[in-house]
Amino acid sequence: MAQKPSIPKGTRDFSPQEVAKRQYLMGVMRTNFEKFGYQPIETPTFENSETLMGKYGEEGDRLIFKILNSGDYLSKANETHLANKDSLRLTASISEKALRYDLTVPFARYVVQHQNDIEFPFKRYQIQPVWRADRPQKGRFREFYQCDADVVGSTSLWQEVELVQLYDSVFSELGLKGVTIKINNRKILSGIAEVIGAKDKLIDFTVALDKLDKIGEDGVKNEMIEKGISAEAIQKVQPLFQFTGTISEKIEQLSALLSSSEEGQKGIEELRFICESIQTLGLKESFLDLDVTLARGLNYYTGAILEVAPPAGVSMGSIGGGGRYDDLTGIFGLKNMSGVGISFGLDRIYLVMEELGLFPEAVTSTSKALFINYGQAEAMYAMQALTELRNQGIRAELYPDAAKIGKQFTHAERRGIRYAIMAGETERAAGQFGLKDLTSGDQVSTDLKGLIAKLR
Amino acid sequence: MAQKPSIPKGTRDFSPQEVAKRQYLMGVMRTNFEKFGYQPIETPTFENSETLMGKYGEEGDRLIFKILNSGDYLSKANETHLANKDSLRLTASISEKALRYDLTVPFARYVVQHQNDIEFPFKRYQIQPVWRADRPQKGRFREFYQCDADVVGSTSLWQEVELVQLYDSVFSELGLKGVTIKINNRKILSGIAEVIGAKDKLIDFTVALDKLDKIGEDGVKNEMIEKGISAEAIQKVQPLFQFTGTISEKIEQLSALLSSSEEGQKGIEELRFICESIQTLGLKESFLDLDVTLARGLNYYTGAILEVAPPAGVSMGSIGGGGRYDDLTGIFGLKNMSGVGISFGLDRIYLVMEELGLFPEAVTSTSKALFINYGQAEAMYAMQALTELRNQGIRAELYPDAAKIGKQFTHAERRGIRYAIMAGETERAAGQFGLKDLTSGDQVSTDLKGLIAKLR
Repeated sequence: MAQKPSIPKGTRDFSPQEVAKRQYLMGVMRTNFEKFGYQPIETPTFENSETLMGKYGEEGDRLIFKILNSGDYLSKANETHLANKDSLRLTASISEKALRYDLTVPFARYVVQHQNDIEFPFKRYQIQPVWRADRPQKGRFREFYQCDADVVGSTSLWQEVELVQLYDSVFSELGLKGVTIKINNRKILSGIAEVIGAKDKLIDFTVALDKLDKIGEDGVKNEMIEKGISAEAIQKVQPLFQFTGTISEKIEQLSALLSSSEEGQKGIEELRFICESIQTLGLKESFLDLDVTLARGLNYYTGAILEVAPPAGVSMGSIGGGGRYDDLTGIFGLKNMSGVGISFGLDRIYLVMEELGLFPEAVTSTSKALFINYGQAEAMYAMQALTELRNQGIRAELYPDAAKIGKQFTHAERRGIRYAIMAGETERAAGQFGLKDLTSGDQVSTDLKGLIAKLR
Repeated sequence: MAQKPSIPKGTRDFSPQEVAKRQYLMGVMRTNFEKFGYQPIETPTFENSETLMGKYGEEGDRLIFKILNSGDYLSKANETHLANKDSLRLTASISEKALRYDLTVPFARYVVQHQNDIEFPFKRYQIQPVWRADRPQKGRFREFYQCDADVVGSTSLWQEVELVQLYDSVFSELGLKGVTIKINNRKILSGIAEVIGAKDKLIDFTVALDKLDKIGEDGVKNEMIEKGISAEAIQKVQPLFQFTGTISEKIEQLSALLSSSEEGQKGIEELRFICESIQTLGLKESFLDLDVTLARGLNYYTGAILEVAPPAGVSMGSIGGGGRYDDLTGIFGLKNMSGVGISFGLDRIYLVMEELGLFPEAVTSTSKALFINYGQAEAMYAMQALTELRNQGIRAELYPDAAKIGKQFTHAERRGIRYAIMAGETERAAGQFGLKDLTSGDQVSTDLKGLIAKLR
């Protein structure tokens, strides 16, 4: 093979530095998930196709990676579809398994499959990769991690309150100050649809309203009319065009606006409880804001809808999202299981952290010190010290070969190793080590005890 | 869907308790890998098929999971193979990607692809799942983790020494005392083959010799003769039948035995260096032993061969293995890159740890305390305390609903949560909390400060 090998488009290799940073992010999430009582589960990389197919819409089905059956798969292939060269229909007869597309459907499957062993309400988190046969783009990959926390088995709104706190807790610990946790409620959106008398136009309505900052009130109204929303309908929700103030003020405006909608009022009641609770409990570094244009996963969520915007000044889409779905496990035959959950966008959070320079310097997998190798006897002297350093939990290594000294120092520098330890014939005879700080150039001579104290 | 959903055979769901234990094992490995200067990389779940195919032999190719191309894959299918219903040959034209089969080939691919960015010698570790379409059996799965540490770019034997130390360090930290790290050398095996004058019979020879304990000297010799090894040849290696003593003694016996084989002598020299170095440096809890029947991956390794046996009394195969391979990256066109590495068998180590009861009790993802929910106002009082507990890093939660008290206590017990915190109307009025230890039944009344002190 003369050609340099490569990896499939939309996938990535992660270098040591990248893995260390990703591990750091996942570690902070993990710790916080567990502080909030969420427990980890893991599910297989591939599921039976019937578990996944039909759960994400037609487009989703298309984007699911299918695994070819092993062995003589053509022997069981559907003859008709094969003869017609009907790829789409043939798949089911030559592929029984498919790669996980998200973590929510496998979670629902897990809950139903293990329902007798699970103690409800069940708070679970899951940090695993998922795969989508999407067209790769900047920031969109075919393999990427999802980091989800969900509770299933209770309709208590304390869970929504807690999920807002959880977002705040994770982002605060990461040093990511000033994120905005936007909240809305599916029932409020239903109320708006009722009021404008056009349930089917709800998406068009929210998409247009979302542009208020950019194109102004007239621009938004024109777009709405173009989309077939009547002027009367728009008139009825006029307050949404001057929708400002604190969350409490916004809630009162909404309440008046949706006074005729029972469902709308229910949504306002839920929203009020969550927002007032958060107000009482306080957030560390994040802001909570009501955004009536927030409609993500509209066909999916039934209660609260959440989305996290990065700090002002960072041009990046949402770095998290979630909501309440009243019938999580119904697709697998277990009815009346309400769920609510949130997701963290690992890749985007990574990019934001990089942009703002927020990764701690200590987040690295590199050794703290490199012993220079002066030859067999000296190397044994170094290895004895090294063994002790490692026993003390210090990350260190010996250059494996007695190469030229300059080359060894260059190796330390290129690896980002801060200290070089010289243990040549003289040092060995004296039971000493020369410790050189490659950043400052400072050099001291010390015994093993001093070495440990210095490097710990 | 009336039927309970299931997962593909050979795959597993992991419960919170299992994930916590696996994370613990991987955490110990990770920490030790980094103490020894190994740095993490991660590679994609699927590789281009050409990267994997042909690297594991014909049987390996068959066991690789292939991913069906997206979209109208039949439009590019090979007409002839399709008409002949030749599944084996058709695959290449309808599948371009395949799931990772091990971590070594992707590592070799990574090294070649990123050779200009890598500072050699390159010490990398990788902890990721792999997939094999093997027939599932007890303890053999289609999806399982590999945990590998390898160095590439140096032939220094200090690396072998260090890998023995690394095994010892990981197993000692896990409390797994008394594992035997068995060592051999490919060149010694070649030497034996030379001496018995039957290179092609080497496997038969080592397999038979390995049974010495079970079937005795005569049994082994009979088996060797049945396999076509001549009596004269067997006579020449007679010392191997009384092969006992310390490593040093064994090495001397071998040295005499292989005096006529140049390659054998080279192997002995390597072995001697590694074993004497380990003797000088010492091991914490493990034993190093020379096992001339050790021949794993015979066609693969070129120098040291390592394998780890669990402590005596545990009936389980090897829990780790590795060795030196002189041409790691040649398959991708980068010549003269010697590599040496070891692997940890996560699933088996898990089973051994369970059998010996070695998982620390603290390895759990469960909350330390559950606040009992007495209703809205009391729940807010609880949530305020809970927020502070979590800020202090304490894992705790509130039962989300004001359910019957008995049900809430049962929930805590079933979840393995040790403390229940009662914050009802009386406690709230007094600014107190009732803290009940569900293990001992002891109950105290305390303020928030006391609660934190008690639970931390």
